Amino acid sequence: MELIVYLAGQIHDDWREQLRQGAQARNLPIRFKGPQENHDLSDEIGERIKGTQPNAVYRDHVASEVNNLRTRVWMQKADIVIALFGEKYRQWNTAMDASMALALNKPLILIRPESLHHPLKELAQRAQLVVETPEQALDALAYLFKE
Amino acid sequence: MELIVYLAGQIHDDWREQLRQGAQARNLPIRFKGPQENHDLSDEIGERIKGTQPNAVYRDHVASEVNNLRTRVWMQKADIVIALFGEKYRQWNTAMDASMALALNKPLILIRPESLHHPLKELAQRAQLVVETPEQALDALAYLFKE
Amino acid sequence: MELIVYLAGQIHDDWREQLRQGAQARNLPIRFKGPQENHDLSDEIGERIKGTQPNAVYRDHVASEVNNLRTRVWMQKADIVIALFGEKYRQWNTAMDASMALALNKPLILIRPESLHHPLKELAQRAQLVVETPEQALDALAYLFKE
Amino acid sequence: MELIVYLAGQIHDDWREQLRQGAQARNLPIRFKGPQENHDLSDEIGERIKGTQPNAVYRDHVASEVNNLRTRVWMQKADIVIALFGEKYRQWNTAMDASMALALNKPLILIRPESLHHPLKELAQRAQLVVETPEQALDALAYLFKE
Amino acid sequence: MELIVYLAGQIHDDWREQLRQGAQARNLPIRFKGPQENHDLSDEIGERIKGTQPNAVYRDHVASEVNNLRTRVWMQKADIVIALFGEKYRQWNTAMDASMALALNKPLILIRPESLHHPLKELAQRAQLVVETPEQALDALAYLFKE
Amino acid sequence: MELIVYLAGQIHDDWREQLRQGAQARNLPIRFKGPQENHDLSDEIGERIKGTQPNAVYRDHVASEVNNLRTRVWMQKADIVIALFGEKYRQWNTAMDASMALALNKPLILIRPESLHHPLKELAQRAQLVVETPEQALDALAYLFKE
Amino acid sequence: MELIVYLAGQIHDDWREQLRQGAQARNLPIRFKGPQENHDLSDEIGERIKGTQPNAVYRDHVASEVNNLRTRVWMQKADIVIALFGEKYRQWNTAMDASMALALNKPLILIRPESLHHPLKELAQRAQLVVETPEQALDALAYLFKE
Amino acid sequence: MELIVYLAGQIHDDWREQLRQGAQARNLPIRFKGPQENHDLSDEIGERIKGTQPNAVYRDHVASEVNNLRTRVWMQKADIVIALFGEKYRQWNTAMDASMALALNKPLILIRPESLHHPLKELAQRAQLVVETPEQALDALAYLFKE
Repeated sequence: MELIVYLAGQIHDDWREQLRQGAQARNLPIRFKGPQENHDLSDEIGERIKGTQPNAVYRDHVASEVNNLRTRVWMQKADIVIALFGEKYRQWNTAMDASMALALNKPLILIRPESLHHPLKELAQRAQLVVETPEQALDALAYLFKE
Repeated sequence: MELIVYLAGQIHDDWREQLRQGAQARNLPIRFKGPQENHDLSDEIGERIKGTQPNAVYRDHVASEVNNLRTRVWMQKADIVIALFGEKYRQWNTAMDASMALALNKPLILIRPESLHHPLKELAQRAQLVVETPEQALDALAYLFKE
Repeated sequence: MELIVYLAGQIHDDWREQLRQGAQARNLPIRFKGPQENHDLSDEIGERIKGTQPNAVYRDHVASEVNNLRTRVWMQKADIVIALFGEKYRQWNTAMDASMALALNKPLILIRPESLHHPLKELAQRAQLVVETPEQALDALAYLFKE
Repeated sequence: MELIVYLAGQIHDDWREQLRQGAQARNLPIRFKGPQENHDLSDEIGERIKGTQPNAVYRDHVASEVNNLRTRVWMQKADIVIALFGEKYRQWNTAMDASMALALNKPLILIRPESLHHPLKELAQRAQLVVETPEQALDALAYLFKE
Repeated sequence: MELIVYLAGQIHDDWREQLRQGAQARNLPIRFKGPQENHDLSDEIGERIKGTQPNAVYRDHVASEVNNLRTRVWMQKADIVIALFGEKYRQWNTAMDASMALALNKPLILIRPESLHHPLKELAQRAQLVVETPEQALDALAYLFKE
Repeated sequence: MELIVYLAGQIHDDWREQLRQGAQARNLPIRFKGPQENHDLSDEIGERIKGTQPNAVYRDHVASEVNNLRTRVWMQKADIVIALFGEKYRQWNTAMDASMALALNKPLILIRPESLHHPLKELAQRAQLVVETPEQALDALAYLFKE
Repeated sequence: MELIVYLAGQIHDDWREQLRQGAQARNLPIRFKGPQENHDLSDEIGERIKGTQPNAVYRDHVASEVNNLRTRVWMQKADIVIALFGEKYRQWNTAMDASMALALNKPLILIRPESLHHPLKELAQRAQLVVETPEQALDALAYLFKE
Repeated sequence: MELIVYLAGQIHDDWREQLRQGAQARNLPIRFKGPQENHDLSDEIGERIKGTQPNAVYRDHVASEVNNLRTRVWMQKADIVIALFGEKYRQWNTAMDASMALALNKPLILIRPESLHHPLKELAQRAQLVVETPEQALDALAYLFKE
């Protein structure tokens, strides 16, 4: 039985690819979905589809219409949500996705460096599992299938 | 008919008091609830109740047990959630509260300076209303009662 | 035990006042809520609160942020939703409110002139009760309290 | 992973076929469902199954029993709902379907000519995405699958 | 803390009055609601409000529009539903109300003579409590308040 | 896309087989599920599994434990519920299943002879479709798949 | 604003009274509800209402019909559930109540001696707050009201 | 149509294997899922993934993060939950899983020796089916598929 895992978080390095390859190496029947990882495309998608907007606020608004469409569709299909936080960026959309998973009663795995334990303490307390690396998240996913 | 409004966001200045006084000045039948605003108490509450924990991560964990208890109780009673973001701090718990409101189908008013429009774009797109100041949020609350 | 009734529909004549007075004349313990009935205010409220927008589409967008906030708050509190359709105007927001009531499992009373039976047939079939005049809706409300 | 998209809206031109062919041309794994597009059949289906009714109102009532059955079954299976509005017709059933999608927490893509922005402003504000042409909706669907 | 109890079942004798008086005699803080107990009024209410219908089927249809409106409003407010079955009548609306209570997760007390145990076995098995007389139901209600 | 249809109702004639064969003859992609149609087995299943019970009431209770298990499992998987009522028997479990379908928001097709319109009026008013014969129900199912 | 707290757990000592008095001493606006604390009455209530049952299993069954009725009614009204475990007794109904609170999304405070940390580890991990004494639970309740 | 059955309960003997083999021998299309049955692995999994914890309470906490992740994922996919209680162990996690199944509206089959009828009476009363042996549970599962 295949599981669907949504990968919320920054799109500035290749942590998702790391998870995908790790799952494949372990033969885990998992399908990963996530946001658009091409950062420029993600920022421009609203205007590419709907045309130039009158200012930067509305440019962001229309990009978010499309990006949130993508997030909602795949997160609704997910059995598990993994949210990764790093030292850089504000990552409020990651926090939004993580919290949405909580409220939708989807088990949430939070990945964050220990250094972030204080600002993420409320989210961590409500997550199903808190780890520090994608490799640890993979260990937990593997455990689900271990008879 | 009284409305209950939960005020999510930082606890470093008196923006909640500003809203409370503004609502009173306009005679709005609103009861505001929110997190513990005494910052030290908020950080220490877990150990005050449960005793000293073995390290800083678990100190934060037990504080969040109590703070999340408070947030959950009052947010479940809220008719509207207001989330305020400022320039400082990571404010991931604010993002969590805001997103929880979305998922619970409670109308969300997002207050943020225009300068934050880019990092908050996904949350803004799903909020019911986005404004820049507590005074504007108060205008919207007043509109609910205007016959 | 007081009931709350949300009155969805056009704001171009005084049908809501007619219902309010009729309920009072019959001593029904009903509190009516509804949208902002001042049409200009309803169209301008977004820009009044958030400032001038770059074009007419966004002017409407911000007005709807505030008007939908109002609708959502009061409809969530409603025990019954009444939606009135007339010959004039497109009234798509009325259809939206009526359908939202259906999906929220709130009993819907649809008021429409018989002449509109064809375009409203799908909505009528899913309403709890279909009548032609506010007076008939009032008869049904009175019946709820008749021991 | 295939997605199911419900196409709400008028049945007077071939916009659904346009979407189906566009999706096929782009190799998108999407299955489209929608209402009965044969207009006469749609109006007559109640009487064809249940026999002649005593008047036009009840003729419409029984047709809607069957048409709403169809809409409910396929919309419940849909991952995304697209609602298209045009210049003609009252299209209240389209507004009903669109609003039902909102209330069921299914992402809604609203297609409408810019000229309709005012009467559709409340629905547009709550849609996940608003565009003006089926081609733009297709662009957004394609984006969901773009790795 | 007052409880609201909905009384589903036949309207041919005074079993509801018996419960009301019993609760009063025991000083139980309970408010009872139920269907219209005037049988003629209940059958005629549709045509009284909406006018004469073309045949008996549609006469019943419009009466049920109004009676179901009443049932839905009060049942949604109920903390407990009591459904009474007797030897006479088909009582399918009672079965509908009882089952609706189950599906809405409202505790159901089923009152039925032992002689009906076989035809009511499925409903009995899913009820929270099965008794044979209104007096026994009253005993159970009294137990809720016994400190 | 296959649909699952649950067939609630009496198990004294072969109306289910009639529907199964009709669907097959029309090539409809429908899988039918329903209660145990062997009447003796249905009544005895509790004691067959759990052993002899102390009296007839408890014999029925344990049979219903197993029969309701079956009903709940398949009804939860159903896209549509069909409930058939006939002239004979009290059929309260049919009414329970029909009402459960309503409350679970599953479209309900009610089949009943016209002669039963009065005792079934409340259930009929809330069903999605009311017909008089299995053949008519089949017509409606076929319509769902008609492009 | 008064909160309702349901007190699940053993009924062999006066821990509930301790909480009630503590809350009163601190002027907390809390109303406590809970199971019947008279142990004999709790075990006999089924037979007192429904008459003697044929054996001990069914005696327990009917007692649980009434006791579960009470638990369900008050737990549905509760804003918070407190579940206390002690060294003695199997306390499976306490575990049931605690878990029901989790599934109903009601914040759960778990009170257990540290010695029970191993057998209660799964429940503890999903509780909102874990403490060792009723006094600590009271501290947390007081914190909710501390402005 | 395959059913998924989650097997909650102790992991100290091979009752799950007994069910798996019995289902296979009867050719039942059932897929069983359950907790990690290697007891040492189950207790150590938290520290294996997250590293040594400061004390036994937190060791259990982290193990439960991973074990509850597993339970939640598979229970959400289950059509039926079976919970087995035996004479030994406190089995509070079994009670938690059983109760979670009730609250998620998943049919629960409770297996317990008759000797445990008193401490399990509340849970038994709310289960869909109570039996004494895995073989009896298998009989009930087989009945679901018996045409």
